[in-house]
Amino acid sequence: MTRFALTLEFDGTPFFGLQRQKDGPSVQQAVEEAAQRVLGKDVRLHSAGRTDTGVHALAMRSHIDIDKAIEPFRLMEALNAHLRPDPIAVTHCEAVPDDWHARFSCIGRAYVYRIANRRAPLTLDKDRLWQVPQDLDHGAMHRAAEALIGLHDFTTFRSVHCQSDSPVKTLDKLEVERDGDEVRIHAEARSFLHHQVRSMVGCLALVGMGRWREEQVAEALAARDRQALGLNAPPHGLYFVRAVYPEDA
Amino acid sequence: MTRFALTLEFDGTPFFGLQRQKDGPSVQQAVEEAAQRVLGKDVRLHSAGRTDTGVHALAMRSHIDIDKAIEPFRLMEALNAHLRPDPIAVTHCEAVPDDWHARFSCIGRAYVYRIANRRAPLTLDKDRLWQVPQDLDHGAMHRAAEALIGLHDFTTFRSVHCQSDSPVKTLDKLEVERDGDEVRIHAEARSFLHHQVRSMVGCLALVGMGRWREEQVAEALAARDRQALGLNAPPHGLYFVRAVYPEDA
Repeated sequence: MTRFALTLEFDGTPFFGLQRQKDGPSVQQAVEEAAQRVLGKDVRLHSAGRTDTGVHALAMRSHIDIDKAIEPFRLMEALNAHLRPDPIAVTHCEAVPDDWHARFSCIGRAYVYRIANRRAPLTLDKDRLWQVPQDLDHGAMHRAAEALIGLHDFTTFRSVHCQSDSPVKTLDKLEVERDGDEVRIHAEARSFLHHQVRSMVGCLALVGMGRWREEQVAEALAARDRQALGLNAPPHGLYFVRAVYPEDA
Repeated sequence: MTRFALTLEFDGTPFFGLQRQKDGPSVQQAVEEAAQRVLGKDVRLHSAGRTDTGVHALAMRSHIDIDKAIEPFRLMEALNAHLRPDPIAVTHCEAVPDDWHARFSCIGRAYVYRIANRRAPLTLDKDRLWQVPQDLDHGAMHRAAEALIGLHDFTTFRSVHCQSDSPVKTLDKLEVERDGDEVRIHAEARSFLHHQVRSMVGCLALVGMGRWREEQVAEALAARDRQALGLNAPPHGLYFVRAVYPEDA
């Protein structure tokens, strides 16, 4: 048995998220079916993170176990051939030790959330960014974000469907930058609660629009109450960008 | 009568080019029909450049004449509302003097051509870049491009359908840069021949792949013969990025 680490890039638009779902197509199902066609037997995909319907990935890390001799490059090419026309690509593939686990060995996750801050409808970037027509004060958003950094009870920013044992997490980074009419929010942590990034982005956007004072983000956090959430940002602006492992350090 | 200059952004994928065509949808037809619905009468759109099927625009400049009092901002909003769901957006609108002409006043055009230099299929960038799996030597491409800069007879790089009076044009800029696995070619001139950018990019790509020596680009130019063209790059990597007018200087 050889364990192969895969790096996956995907357009989340047509999928009901990364994980297998009873009610619709998932990235996991597509990759497992491609692997089944390549290898002639069932394969289980394990991944660093979960993503919701419509959320994208630039470099999700996953693994599969295979009891057949195959070169990583050939495996990657075969998976990509069988994944067509689904918008999923294996961009890297390598053999890893048996005790390396895409999810359990992962010590850091990074996301970026992209906002198109303009009035005109999106064309080339449709389904790739959240469009916010009101002028966003990204400086105020960046300052408000600082209140969320560190060890906190993130109950306010947690979906009712979250399966995490605890709402207490350490947020390592939450930064807001502007590049022309695009506002980007960068978030990093060891792990995130379900909907946490989108919920934090939604509240920061309210600050950017001037509908919330900067301090209201800290107040929402302190409330530890989902009802204190101002807004959950839509999924299509969110990208999983990086999974970090001990060997990367 | 008031002349309005429009800046258009569009995804060229579903259109048979910018110009009205007998056999399929065009950007011009879509904008003219939106204007007809806004204004209740026929309107003619004039544009700085022509683009082929599948070619995109980040900032095409166009104009329309309207004999009705309307604020530029309101016109832009109304056009965008009526353009939905077509992937065309008016990103800027302003009243201009009657003698300003989107095509005839234009003294410079800029394009960028985007190549995804990777083996893995494209997902998020499908229909946005030309995928070239072989490693491209962008330094060799950049050096080979220098032979095309300046005043030349570009017959080799001209479509048989080109309507220009002369194949002699001055190419002001042709630069190749790499950003990770993306290779971008920037082209600027007062005007271009039909298919000129795609034809130049195709030959530069052959150099990048090592299938052409750098000098073959100069040789193809000197041949002044369409048969000497190595490759016409596909349309979906090409973007019209900027039109320049005397008042911009």
